Amino acid sequence: MSDVADNRILTVGLGDRSYDIVIGEGSFAEAGARLRDFARDGGLCVVSDENVRDIYGGALTETLGRAGLRYDSFVIPPGEGSKNISLLSGIYDWFGEGGRLKRDGLVVAFGGGVVGDLAGFAAATWMRGVSYVQIPTTLLAMVDSSVGGKTAIDTKRGKNLVGAFHQPSLVLIDPTLTETLPERELRAGFAEVAKYGAIASEGLFGRLERNGRATGLSDVIHECCSIKAKLVEEDEFDAGRRAILNFGHTFGHAIESKYGFAKYNHGEAISAGMSMAAAVGERLGVTDKGTAARLDALLSRLGLSSRESADGLVAHMRSDKKALADGVNLILLKRVGEAVVHRMSWDELEETLHG
Amino acid sequence: MSDVADNRILTVGLGDRSYDIVIGEGSFAEAGARLRDFARDGGLCVVSDENVRDIYGGALTETLGRAGLRYDSFVIPPGEGSKNISLLSGIYDWFGEGGRLKRDGLVVAFGGGVVGDLAGFAAATWMRGVSYVQIPTTLLAMVDSSVGGKTAIDTKRGKNLVGAFHQPSLVLIDPTLTETLPERELRAGFAEVAKYGAIASEGLFGRLERNGRATGLSDVIHECCSIKAKLVEEDEFDAGRRAILNFGHTFGHAIESKYGFAKYNHGEAISAGMSMAAAVGERLGVTDKGTAARLDALLSRLGLSSRESADGLVAHMRSDKKALADGVNLILLKRVGEAVVHRMSWDELEETLHG
Repeated sequence: MSDVADNRILTVGLGDRSYDIVIGEGSFAEAGARLRDFARDGGLCVVSDENVRDIYGGALTETLGRAGLRYDSFVIPPGEGSKNISLLSGIYDWFGEGGRLKRDGLVVAFGGGVVGDLAGFAAATWMRGVSYVQIPTTLLAMVDSSVGGKTAIDTKRGKNLVGAFHQPSLVLIDPTLTETLPERELRAGFAEVAKYGAIASEGLFGRLERNGRATGLSDVIHECCSIKAKLVEEDEFDAGRRAILNFGHTFGHAIESKYGFAKYNHGEAISAGMSMAAAVGERLGVTDKGTAARLDALLSRLGLSSRESADGLVAHMRSDKKALADGVNLILLKRVGEAVVHRMSWDELEETLHG
Repeated sequence: MSDVADNRILTVGLGDRSYDIVIGEGSFAEAGARLRDFARDGGLCVVSDENVRDIYGGALTETLGRAGLRYDSFVIPPGEGSKNISLLSGIYDWFGEGGRLKRDGLVVAFGGGVVGDLAGFAAATWMRGVSYVQIPTTLLAMVDSSVGGKTAIDTKRGKNLVGAFHQPSLVLIDPTLTETLPERELRAGFAEVAKYGAIASEGLFGRLERNGRATGLSDVIHECCSIKAKLVEEDEFDAGRRAILNFGHTFGHAIESKYGFAKYNHGEAISAGMSMAAAVGERLGVTDKGTAARLDALLSRLGLSSRESADGLVAHMRSDKKALADGVNLILLKRVGEAVVHRMSWDELEETLHG
């Protein structure tokens, strides 16, 4: 498999909320032409972070300028710490200044998952919802958070506790933007890629086992987005099947939270969380024997850690937003390429984790 | 027409977001039994204001207690000033404390429009949406903001600039709760009642002309909610016909904003705004001659002022969220009982206002 030069377009079919995911090397250079279809007179507001602004700000101005588009930009500090209500409030005030963003305006989330979640939530709630476009710059955001319309901010009680479903009007993915990512962030993105293999595609899983991170990025992103698009079409509001995308996430969020979001980044925590979920699944007899070892080997091949202590995790899981009063719906593997939702009580989970 | 003792139930038909509006004198005393159908294990969080807590807090505890329901409450200062992001953030933190509100929990907005909008928005965005019930305590909230799922907070740039559509699971209206309202607030509620007559029911308008504020409250509320329910069913997300509910509101919001939300309350500003819209409509030849005079006479009979200067209003209208870059969709009457959406450029509007 090799990368193709042409753009490939996936459609997320959601009736009048349908939209395209454009995936292509070099597609960022044509962002202006693509955005022109969505920008109207009500303002064009780009949210990005300092790193993205420094590296790609000039190129954005150029492509938008060629399309005759002028924009204002709001730049946040990089990192999960920016997904807070005080920066959100700053964005609202900025939208409102001199009527910068009107009901018929457009927001562009230009950055990683933090920018996408924060700008997406601001767009979801400004005037009860204005249009927005995702231009993800990290592998993690390309394969996960930029697609599907989940937007959120964190509160001091946990990640993504405040948010909204608000589908973008377009997702524009240029895999070459990942070339400027720090090694650690790129690696973290492969945790989510491995997740798609684990829950839905033994083929992808196998290619990753064979080629590791040399697996062609465009193809990998296309396959991950196809899987996600299908799950989002089936279950836009995450009331059923879409939950399998959370494989590794309930443990992962608890691990992030346990270390105050400092020790691990999101992908690293998800990697450890998937490993833990696979082990729990085998202990419960839900997951085929050997699956956990195979997953751990792949994560290790991708340069990802897979070992984390279970101590104290359940307390953090209970304040996760997936938590119900009497237990949690864990995502477990049946085998590589197939996931199931498994309801467990807190006691049962505590016992299994330390069993 | 006289009030009836039995509860009357209207259904807002929105597929899996459908819900009932229960209207009945004394229905508040049965709130516990009604809420039991919606409260699950994930916490029962009541948001109200200091006035409502002082007057009805004991009765709420009693009716919920009889139904075996325990609740926590968050009490805000009364008044529009509380619809801000800092109190919203306080509510999020409170929801999160010790896992007070889980995904399967229930929020109850117990108060006027400010409580309903703020608590509704908090419910809309907590964990991307938890269920909530509206128990309005003002006439304004009973006939308007408690029904239809519009939730919002204000920003320093204007009213309701941040918000979400999130339908309640139940609206419980006990008209007798209005007996403890200050005279000025009750009167303001009649501005919205007159609006329903003006835009959609000459019959209601005529009864108000004949009986003034002696018109039976239960019937009036029932008729207003029926009109609103129908419009919400037709156009849940306010992309078309539902806009006629904004009759008087574009001017009204500008009037509130012009005086820093201090001189007039919402109903009073809407009253002046409707009068202005009727006059503009006649000037444009859209509204039948004599309609403005008839509306002004009714507003006066209801104790509502109808005169306000147009100076400086357009500037405030341009930052209203209904504003588009090149103009505004004004709601005008064709005649008493019928409204239309009328697009105007800013220049045209300025000219007509001062013509």
